[in-house]
Amino acid sequence: MKKIIILGSTGSIGTQTLDIVDENPDLFTVTALSCRSRVDELIQQIEKYRPLGICVGNEADARRVQERFPNLTVYHGDEGLVQLTEVEGDMIVNSLMGISGLAPTYHGIRLGKDIALANKETLVAGGALVMDAVARKGVKLLPVDSEHSAIFQCLEGNKGREIRRILLTASGGPFRKYSPEELEDVTLDQALNHPKWTMGRKITIDSATMMNKGLEVIEARWLFDVPASKIDVHVHPESIVHSMVEFADTSVIAQMGLPDMRIPISLALGYPKRLEYSGDSLDFFTEGANLHFEKPRMDVFRCLSLAYQAIEDGRSYPIALNGANEELVAMFLNKEIRFLDIQRTIEKVLEAHNPVDPKSVSEILEIDWEARRMARELAQG
Amino acid sequence: MKKIIILGSTGSIGTQTLDIVDENPDLFTVTALSCRSRVDELIQQIEKYRPLGICVGNEADARRVQERFPNLTVYHGDEGLVQLTEVEGDMIVNSLMGISGLAPTYHGIRLGKDIALANKETLVAGGALVMDAVARKGVKLLPVDSEHSAIFQCLEGNKGREIRRILLTASGGPFRKYSPEELEDVTLDQALNHPKWTMGRKITIDSATMMNKGLEVIEARWLFDVPASKIDVHVHPESIVHSMVEFADTSVIAQMGLPDMRIPISLALGYPKRLEYSGDSLDFFTEGANLHFEKPRMDVFRCLSLAYQAIEDGRSYPIALNGANEELVAMFLNKEIRFLDIQRTIEKVLEAHNPVDPKSVSEILEIDWEARRMARELAQG
Repeated sequence: MKKIIILGSTGSIGTQTLDIVDENPDLFTVTALSCRSRVDELIQQIEKYRPLGICVGNEADARRVQERFPNLTVYHGDEGLVQLTEVEGDMIVNSLMGISGLAPTYHGIRLGKDIALANKETLVAGGALVMDAVARKGVKLLPVDSEHSAIFQCLEGNKGREIRRILLTASGGPFRKYSPEELEDVTLDQALNHPKWTMGRKITIDSATMMNKGLEVIEARWLFDVPASKIDVHVHPESIVHSMVEFADTSVIAQMGLPDMRIPISLALGYPKRLEYSGDSLDFFTEGANLHFEKPRMDVFRCLSLAYQAIEDGRSYPIALNGANEELVAMFLNKEIRFLDIQRTIEKVLEAHNPVDPKSVSEILEIDWEARRMARELAQG
Repeated sequence: MKKIIILGSTGSIGTQTLDIVDENPDLFTVTALSCRSRVDELIQQIEKYRPLGICVGNEADARRVQERFPNLTVYHGDEGLVQLTEVEGDMIVNSLMGISGLAPTYHGIRLGKDIALANKETLVAGGALVMDAVARKGVKLLPVDSEHSAIFQCLEGNKGREIRRILLTASGGPFRKYSPEELEDVTLDQALNHPKWTMGRKITIDSATMMNKGLEVIEARWLFDVPASKIDVHVHPESIVHSMVEFADTSVIAQMGLPDMRIPISLALGYPKRLEYSGDSLDFFTEGANLHFEKPRMDVFRCLSLAYQAIEDGRSYPIALNGANEELVAMFLNKEIRFLDIQRTIEKVLEAHNPVDPKSVSEILEIDWEARRMARELAQG
């Protein structure tokens, strides 16, 4: 029986993780849950899964939950998320949004817990620090993202073999064919309308700007210890091939499947087993009958080239990129700025960024905070 | 230094195997070579590689080669091929054509030698016997066929995990879109004109009738211990995806690459290493940009359904199927029969076949001989 701590249990990945738990009651038990603001949903989850501990966004909600469940350990806020990783458990599923996922992942690793990672920002901002802790503690860091899960699967039978390149696929988002002029005027609703995946709002916008793919390049660089120069983004509108790896002999191994996050989640949860999945097989005579690949338009979707530049420049540039992006996406979701202001402002933030070598989570969070401040100031100016 | 015995060294797979040896002189040395009739080419190979032993098709050629190379051990005929496997060597590359590949493979396995298998008929006719010997001797049986090499690669990281199905890809051959009426009148030249692969004449005809794919289904059944009912043929005209495996979680792992046999050959030779390949990478923005999959037309390409039927009926049916096919393809290559006579006659041979359970290579060869005799008689009748 694997004991699971789910950070962000009311979000898209969190609820799908609970689906897998429901389908495999003999394999998994849930020991901790968390949400930021969907407290009513969390209360339903507490009643169903009876965890040992939970975390909510603020103190008032914490008090409300504690009154209802007097024996439950209740935490709140960002610090509470870190404390929640101390609850008894074998694996932490980190499906938090944004940089707030970094500290709990890092703390969980130091406690010797395996991590199923859906929070990209953990590695984008804390790559060196986190991977070093993973190696020292000997824990498993299993990717949940469909692309990184695909790469992980392609590499499983190829330990020690030379990687020629990683082919990271991208749906291309809702604006794949838009001209630069058309992109000037896209609305929030258009950007939230992803053609293939139903996801949270922040990641859906990141997908429209292609920053999501940029963050994934950086994440892959750390997860698989491959330089970004060997990671090629391939636009693949059907989202059937979830990514590929080419080896020294030019042989390419690909992982494919329906665009259903429960498949990569179940692999991370059940690893090294593949769990039986109740859904249909991918049908190559219908959904998989036509598969296309295109070069990404790096000059149009500048976020992607900025991400490559940030990981190449190294040091604290990826932290600044990610912090600025989080702030600017929040502003776009709030209709404070226009779509292309996101990429334009990130470029300015990177130009102005003063790189350092952070040695701790708190230093990373400071750099993040400064990048956000600068992004807001530049976007408003 | 791996010592390699190459059976069929002047054929398409044989010469490409020597290309890999040439590219990796520090890894491989050739200890034995063989040909049926291209003796002049073999002589050039003997001069270059200085093997310990060779085998040619008949006694006259054997005498001729022996005179030229007095210190060389020279064999001839089918029995000579079996003797040649006794030459010092770590691995036998079997790229013989047809049922004549069975006895040397079986003998080589019993001598404890690893096998790189490009001869489908070994497993089609001798599956149970050969796989049993492989297990008892603990040798490696590495597939060289692009499809089986692909499946092998897809399974490498998935030992012990449940296979939902194998998706065996097929180019569809030159007559993929032909109507049954058009197939009545196809010529030998049309049948020899394969759209994607340059191969020997026999396998090119098998590809046009789709018997090649049928033989591959049977071969995969033995190599990977998966029932034929879990092996789905997918027509994929681009020949980029060389095959795929779906697992219990519906995740599909695929192997892709340029249609270049040197890639699977080099994997079999170098295994468990992947050898550096000097060729270009597969370009997903050009050759790999559009990948299609279609259902095979089992009612039109009857050879494929007959192969499924033969492996399902089991016992000696696959031997009869293969023997009849070899004889009929030879007759078609000799312009004695028409294209569709191949599938029509095999069907009759299977109907008339009296199944038995062969316990030795010689019993298998007797069944093969009887099926050939019957096929010739029925085709001429």
